[in-house]
Amino acid sequence: MNGAPDITTRIGNKKHLKLVTTPEQAAAMIHPSDTVGMSGFTPTGYPKAVPLALAKRIEKEHFKIQVFTGASVGDELDGALVRAGGISRRYPYQSNNDLRQQINTGNIAYVDMHLSVMPQQLRSGFFGKMAFAIVEAAALTPDGDIIPTTSLGATPTMVSQANKVIVEINVTKPLELAGMHDIYEPLNPPYRRPIPIARAGDRIGLPYIKCGWDKIAAIVPCDIPDTGKALGAIDDDAKAMSKHIIKFLQEEVRKGALPYNLLPLQSGVGSVANAVITGLQHSVFTDLSVYTEVLQDGMLDLIDAGKIDKISTTAISTSPEGTKRFFANLPAYKDKIVLRPQEISNNPEVIRRLGVISINTAIEADIYGNVNSSHVCGTKIMNGIGGAGDFARASYLSIFCTPSIAKKGAISSIVPMCSHIDHTEHDVDVICTEQGLADLRGLSPIERARLIIRSCANPKYREQLTDYLNRSLEATNLAHIPHILKDALSWHQRFIDTGTMEEKSPNI
Amino acid sequence: MNGAPDITTRIGNKKHLKLVTTPEQAAAMIHPSDTVGMSGFTPTGYPKAVPLALAKRIEKEHFKIQVFTGASVGDELDGALVRAGGISRRYPYQSNNDLRQQINTGNIAYVDMHLSVMPQQLRSGFFGKMAFAIVEAAALTPDGDIIPTTSLGATPTMVSQANKVIVEINVTKPLELAGMHDIYEPLNPPYRRPIPIARAGDRIGLPYIKCGWDKIAAIVPCDIPDTGKALGAIDDDAKAMSKHIIKFLQEEVRKGALPYNLLPLQSGVGSVANAVITGLQHSVFTDLSVYTEVLQDGMLDLIDAGKIDKISTTAISTSPEGTKRFFANLPAYKDKIVLRPQEISNNPEVIRRLGVISINTAIEADIYGNVNSSHVCGTKIMNGIGGAGDFARASYLSIFCTPSIAKKGAISSIVPMCSHIDHTEHDVDVICTEQGLADLRGLSPIERARLIIRSCANPKYREQLTDYLNRSLEATNLAHIPHILKDALSWHQRFIDTGTMEEKSPNI
Repeated sequence: MNGAPDITTRIGNKKHLKLVTTPEQAAAMIHPSDTVGMSGFTPTGYPKAVPLALAKRIEKEHFKIQVFTGASVGDELDGALVRAGGISRRYPYQSNNDLRQQINTGNIAYVDMHLSVMPQQLRSGFFGKMAFAIVEAAALTPDGDIIPTTSLGATPTMVSQANKVIVEINVTKPLELAGMHDIYEPLNPPYRRPIPIARAGDRIGLPYIKCGWDKIAAIVPCDIPDTGKALGAIDDDAKAMSKHIIKFLQEEVRKGALPYNLLPLQSGVGSVANAVITGLQHSVFTDLSVYTEVLQDGMLDLIDAGKIDKISTTAISTSPEGTKRFFANLPAYKDKIVLRPQEISNNPEVIRRLGVISINTAIEADIYGNVNSSHVCGTKIMNGIGGAGDFARASYLSIFCTPSIAKKGAISSIVPMCSHIDHTEHDVDVICTEQGLADLRGLSPIERARLIIRSCANPKYREQLTDYLNRSLEATNLAHIPHILKDALSWHQRFIDTGTMEEKSPNI
Repeated sequence: MNGAPDITTRIGNKKHLKLVTTPEQAAAMIHPSDTVGMSGFTPTGYPKAVPLALAKRIEKEHFKIQVFTGASVGDELDGALVRAGGISRRYPYQSNNDLRQQINTGNIAYVDMHLSVMPQQLRSGFFGKMAFAIVEAAALTPDGDIIPTTSLGATPTMVSQANKVIVEINVTKPLELAGMHDIYEPLNPPYRRPIPIARAGDRIGLPYIKCGWDKIAAIVPCDIPDTGKALGAIDDDAKAMSKHIIKFLQEEVRKGALPYNLLPLQSGVGSVANAVITGLQHSVFTDLSVYTEVLQDGMLDLIDAGKIDKISTTAISTSPEGTKRFFANLPAYKDKIVLRPQEISNNPEVIRRLGVISINTAIEADIYGNVNSSHVCGTKIMNGIGGAGDFARASYLSIFCTPSIAKKGAISSIVPMCSHIDHTEHDVDVICTEQGLADLRGLSPIERARLIIRSCANPKYREQLTDYLNRSLEATNLAHIPHILKDALSWHQRFIDTGTMEEKSPNI
């Protein structure tokens, strides 16, 4: 244990110090083909030392395991294990380059799931037994219960369902995180009762994950910090989208469809969503609340600006700078933030009840309002559906954003027909690009198409889209959703064949 | 009022008998361009006399109105108004031949919505003001509150939101329906509280719709019975699907993933869904409960067979024979049935909590597990998404059924890519055809494709589907969701062009 950080003060019962071991010895406990649950939701709160040691072992011994996490995690987990050839199946979300590449070449079976559903299905035994949970912790209580760190994800369920638990105590995570978590694991039906959250900040559970010493197979010290993800600078497109959305929300307040402090906000991961949230800093809105899965830097800005009442999230997924700022001002932020399991943060019961305004990112949207948020040209997965489906369908208002073009204009994000659909026309109230915002509520498909082309499409593609719509109207004699099936996916095919969706001469 | 049925005994305060009038006089109150909400959910519990009179007036005066209902309704409403040219916009669901034809030729704007969402959006003012609600009732209480009939749908919200209410008292509906309803209208966020239902049969509200005499503009007597829909005889395909599903559920019970009495069942409208329910009559299951939007004849069979604990529904949508049977044994059935508003019967909060097993019908499913339940060849709408999306996403187990072929084999219900998607791969746990059942839980897209082709596709199309899958695997080098975009919708195009999806010689 030379050079290992001292975690003695973080273990609540000194009798169990004997469980402290090296990452290598903990990794040696895993059996080939085991199903292993790992903590983590976005690159925060995931174990690092044990997965790195496990990857090294797998490089020598050549075996594979099935990996569950809360959502995406850092490269020390997904990247290292994938490069070692150690993952056969992966659930329920990812965003790692190497993993993505292996999924898109048929080498890893990937099960892309609604994040609220996975813990319930795990408890119901839909995926068989979980051998180990490997869990990042800030500390262990005197009873062997777990004080988590900067994300909760599916960890409570993994700990309750796994045969044994390996706890990785990360000394880069302040002990003062304790008290920020609110852990409530619903019973499975038919024994489930209402989740008693009526406001984003309501606390309904315990501040630690029930585990107990008997279940803990090993305790491993770790001093590797979360990688974090640097956020891109807020560009002009993101600023424009932020403005459109804030203007739209102001108008809804004026009409009486939203209260002065809006309704709890959810915003997806990424620079655009972060920009929208950052933009609220300078808006007229106050007393805002957030009911989301990921807290990004923009939300710290909102807290600092005195705009926030409460934030409910399952992960503190700040940039490296954001993390420093968060840890430095932990007592001030702690009072504003509740960290929940993803089964609660993403639960349709609570989302529908609170009336969440969801703001998520699209890869592409079609003229009728369907959204693809996961697959490029319908085949290659980027990340997955993640929590967007949990939020969009149950929300009060569902907003999707995307810049109107990608690849310097070679791709139009507004297409005749999405090449893959994650969010159907029924789940999309508003589409927003830097060009403008289309409020689709109460419109028929043909009305939606005209509005999306006019308000959201890039001028470069507007004529081409109008041409498709007009030809489809004619070909189908104004069917409910006019399409020419031969041409519906031709934009994507043209991009694959020629490198651009642009038609050289329309109608040919 | 010559020949009008006597409704005196159904009006709780004789002082207000002066409100009784003719259908024509009530219909004369509607203004051109009004937004009118009508009771009804499936062809039951909808007003008939006033819509028929309104249609006659519109034939002479030539104007249009916007029509909201709970879901589909009978021909006296949708059919008559459409044939008179009287509907400009229609929300949120329909299943009428004439209306469908007008929607598919661009003459009526149709807004196809999740049924649980519509009442909330109506209350929030997303669609502007509602001038009138026209509501079928069994009786009016002494305070002018409404005892509904055989469906609740969105009626409570229409009554609360409309400026004025026209009550159509239908004497074909027994007064003994009183007490069967459970009316609970949630507050809008941020004031909403948990919906306190923990068992399918829990009663949480009032047995009448709050209205009051001041809001009632007219009371109209009506003696036209609901049309009802005759159910097709249960054919061999439906019997086979019922067997596959019951076998699957038995296996889940054996594995401990479901309790002995299953979890509350939902089944969509139609003969296949009805056959599945009927099949349960002869199964080992007892103490079943149902949490659904539509009660069909099969559920009366289940009650008669002593298999049912409680049924929660928003509509009693029996065949004409079923209705006779239901009314004749009302006291016996009443104890077993709770009629709720669609905002509650279809609420994701309750569906997720109870762990509903949803069984819905697909028009087509693709090899990756996406489902089209609304549009033929991607363009012409049949009915709409209805409640299927509310149930499928929030359910514990989501099952979709379809016969493997249609039009005597000219159409394969299993296709390379759905021509329209209502339910994404993430919302479909099981696909069942008469050929067999594919349990898709925990499988990657390529694994799903192999299983669906093997278990569900018709033998006639199996080779052609395998060929598509193999070519897509090769063309994309095993991408996450292999597709050849040029060919993905070619089956539908071939059907349009040649009358069959069958390839004469594959690969050409």
